[in-house]
Amino acid sequence: MDKELKKNLALVTDTLKEANLYYHACHVLGYDQQTIAPKKAREAQGETSAFLGNKGFQLVKSKKFIKAAEYLYENRADLGKYDSVLAKSLHREYQRVKRITPKMQHEFSLIYNKAFVDWLNAKEASDFSIFEKSLGKVREIELKQIALEKVHRNTTYDALLDHYERGMTENILDETFGTCKERLLPLLEKIKKSKKQIRRDFMSRTVPEEAQRRMAKYLLNLICFDFERGAITTTEHPFMDDIAVDDIRVTTHYYEDNFASSMFSVLHEGGHALFGQNTPRVHYKHFIEGEKTLGMHESVSRFYENRIGRSKAFIDLVYDKCKEIFPEVFADASAEEFYEAVNVVNPSLIRIEADEFTYTFHIIIRYELEKMIINEGVKISDLPRLWADKYEEYLGVRPDSDKTGVLQDVHWSGGFGYFPTYALGNMYNAMYINKMKEKYDINKLISGGNFDIISDWMTKHVYKKADRLEPQEWIRDITGRAFTPKDYLDYLEEKFGAIYGLS
Amino acid sequence: MDKELKKNLALVTDTLKEANLYYHACHVLGYDQQTIAPKKAREAQGETSAFLGNKGFQLVKSKKFIKAAEYLYENRADLGKYDSVLAKSLHREYQRVKRITPKMQHEFSLIYNKAFVDWLNAKEASDFSIFEKSLGKVREIELKQIALEKVHRNTTYDALLDHYERGMTENILDETFGTCKERLLPLLEKIKKSKKQIRRDFMSRTVPEEAQRRMAKYLLNLICFDFERGAITTTEHPFMDDIAVDDIRVTTHYYEDNFASSMFSVLHEGGHALFGQNTPRVHYKHFIEGEKTLGMHESVSRFYENRIGRSKAFIDLVYDKCKEIFPEVFADASAEEFYEAVNVVNPSLIRIEADEFTYTFHIIIRYELEKMIINEGVKISDLPRLWADKYEEYLGVRPDSDKTGVLQDVHWSGGFGYFPTYALGNMYNAMYINKMKEKYDINKLISGGNFDIISDWMTKHVYKKADRLEPQEWIRDITGRAFTPKDYLDYLEEKFGAIYGLS
Repeated sequence: MDKELKKNLALVTDTLKEANLYYHACHVLGYDQQTIAPKKAREAQGETSAFLGNKGFQLVKSKKFIKAAEYLYENRADLGKYDSVLAKSLHREYQRVKRITPKMQHEFSLIYNKAFVDWLNAKEASDFSIFEKSLGKVREIELKQIALEKVHRNTTYDALLDHYERGMTENILDETFGTCKERLLPLLEKIKKSKKQIRRDFMSRTVPEEAQRRMAKYLLNLICFDFERGAITTTEHPFMDDIAVDDIRVTTHYYEDNFASSMFSVLHEGGHALFGQNTPRVHYKHFIEGEKTLGMHESVSRFYENRIGRSKAFIDLVYDKCKEIFPEVFADASAEEFYEAVNVVNPSLIRIEADEFTYTFHIIIRYELEKMIINEGVKISDLPRLWADKYEEYLGVRPDSDKTGVLQDVHWSGGFGYFPTYALGNMYNAMYINKMKEKYDINKLISGGNFDIISDWMTKHVYKKADRLEPQEWIRDITGRAFTPKDYLDYLEEKFGAIYGLS
Repeated sequence: MDKELKKNLALVTDTLKEANLYYHACHVLGYDQQTIAPKKAREAQGETSAFLGNKGFQLVKSKKFIKAAEYLYENRADLGKYDSVLAKSLHREYQRVKRITPKMQHEFSLIYNKAFVDWLNAKEASDFSIFEKSLGKVREIELKQIALEKVHRNTTYDALLDHYERGMTENILDETFGTCKERLLPLLEKIKKSKKQIRRDFMSRTVPEEAQRRMAKYLLNLICFDFERGAITTTEHPFMDDIAVDDIRVTTHYYEDNFASSMFSVLHEGGHALFGQNTPRVHYKHFIEGEKTLGMHESVSRFYENRIGRSKAFIDLVYDKCKEIFPEVFADASAEEFYEAVNVVNPSLIRIEADEFTYTFHIIIRYELEKMIINEGVKISDLPRLWADKYEEYLGVRPDSDKTGVLQDVHWSGGFGYFPTYALGNMYNAMYINKMKEKYDINKLISGGNFDIISDWMTKHVYKKADRLEPQEWIRDITGRAFTPKDYLDYLEEKFGAIYGLS
């Protein structure tokens, strides 16, 4: 590396180190805001966070920094493998925010923050009108940012998708979701007609929060979550926050009449957290730990939630512990009944409570609405109705409140284009699980409690290059094949065909 | 107000507003660090906090700011009553840190932060040697700061006291604690010899954390804590954090075999929190909400913890609720027995678990050690032994571990001179309670659950001027009398004389 390159790299590195101190604080503030902060404190926290985020933004928007970063990009061939990823990422980000001034960025973050607070309050009151105005503003600034980006995409929505899953397009998603509908809708009809009786009465038995806390810790320990480098706490809408290299947090929500909700949300967020905890430390050192896309991330979270958590082997493994911690629930319910109950296909209103089979429809609904919002400019005030119509169309259920309908998810307060990554995650993991099967009998690993082996395989194959490859390269690198929903749909057909005796 | 003054005031106000954004983030980071952050994340959090705190410090250390602030001070006679307090405070602070550069300040905060983390780890491991080096450094920088302050005090320790309780001196404390020893030590001997039997077996019965959480919320609601502007969470060492005007937090620790510990810590921190929540909003607007001293603060926390919480009227009031939430505990224990149990005089090792009577000795011990540390330069490595000797001397007990001895309290990781404020708090509240009694029968208010009336009286008499007056002016303003430990000692003699049948 020549002297000039070295100098520019040092400038970039030092600046990012400083910017990260601001972002670190923003992370902690955001986490606090969503977990502990009292209601009336939320807005001020958002303002502080916007101020600090803007300080970081100013650093990476300085002429000196941009010049150095662009120099790295031009000379990326001479950089090491991590720094060249950083150079590409900084260039991409620079192209994206080139025309966005710090002042605009600050305005935008205040709008997102206000939208988040309004969403919280709206959901609490189950009243969309509290959120409506903010949501309209979010759409406005999302469109504004896309316009300023001047990227060349087929549609505006494609540009938004790119923020969450680089290279993803409406074309791919239309085809993917089209195949899903073709294969899953007829099966859903068969399942609905099936005579299979699945017991669920015990699933709503009252379980004190304290017992659920114990279960959450047990599950996280089981899947190899490191509590010295992470924590778990409660929130309204569960999420994972990778605050820092040694600070990866899981959040969950405990419902006394739905113990399984927190069990599976803990496995889901725990999966996200394992991805964070097993990201190579060298990625943090080179500031590329955040390159992984959301589709990659959701592939891991949903791997732990569903492919592990809702498998027969896992339920058999944890059944005795469940019986010990929740004696009221399992006094007269067998492991087999528990397995069936957590896999019952039940078209319902809440995405995060959805069964594995109907889940994709929750995403398709949101995907179709997002396209309408962004590409077709539907009226924001029509969303509660449009939402309800879509649920009726695909799942035959209709929300009777905003809280169980359009207000259930936080995501839109932060923008559009996130949801498809959940479905992509399911499809990615179905592909790499088939790869894992070439080496291991996964059910045997689960039955034996060998989550360390699973975690090692994931680290080596799934996590290791996630920050360095584009999603489509990454899945091909792991599996040797191009992205396809086929593995996932095969899996769903086989699993639910067996449960409902349809095969 | 003339144009020049107005201009300078605006500059000061705008700068403080910006600095407060940094401090707000530091507060949240510090809170997080002490409550949820995983072990390995603590140090990085401290570094971020030190960085941001330093940004705030730089703002108030800028020549422009100092010039404007000094202008306000010189012209304080023309300022409104709040702004003149601010001008005096800024001048005092300026005098204090005049010779401390931002670089030094940053070094200092890293040392305090490291000491805090080392203390946490040392306490966990019950090993003073982990903390020793850091504590030595804390002493070093405390002495360095005092030297740089160049204030004229009789002793170095007086200068430290001044940080926590302005105007307080060794002379006053020596006399005050001398009186305490004179009056309390003979009584302690009598109590020790008393034949009074107090039942305590039920106090260590196992109570699940969940039930204690319910109790904590009940107590905070009872004393009029506002949950929309505050929160409660768990920590190792309970504290209150007034993060922002609408964000006042209480923390506590739940021990399954000591339910009373969290009850009284909640009342204590709840008292602090009420002081914060009832501080006039206008004080925040004028940046003087932090002028109140720790002695004032402790007077309120210990008012709620002891004068209310450990009174017969209060125990009678909450007894039924206790029986409902902790049925295992109170199945065979009466309200009378509960009252006596929470007031048993039992010379013991842990300050925050101490009874009201022996509490002052825990403070005297720390006070005498602090003077030795600061004025006499004792060897840090001798502290565990010196600590144990003092406990043996005054209370006849000797810690068998660092955890139950010298490591029990967090305070020294942040410097010296804090502890006396706890004792002063007891003496202040004894004085103003006698004032309150001129208007109300306090026991009647407590029995009737009229905590709103108590809170209103406190707001009007105790909180309202706390940010505007020096401690000695403040107590005289409330009571019409000069500071004296007499009211407190009279109270202790009467209460414990009655309990132990000595009167």
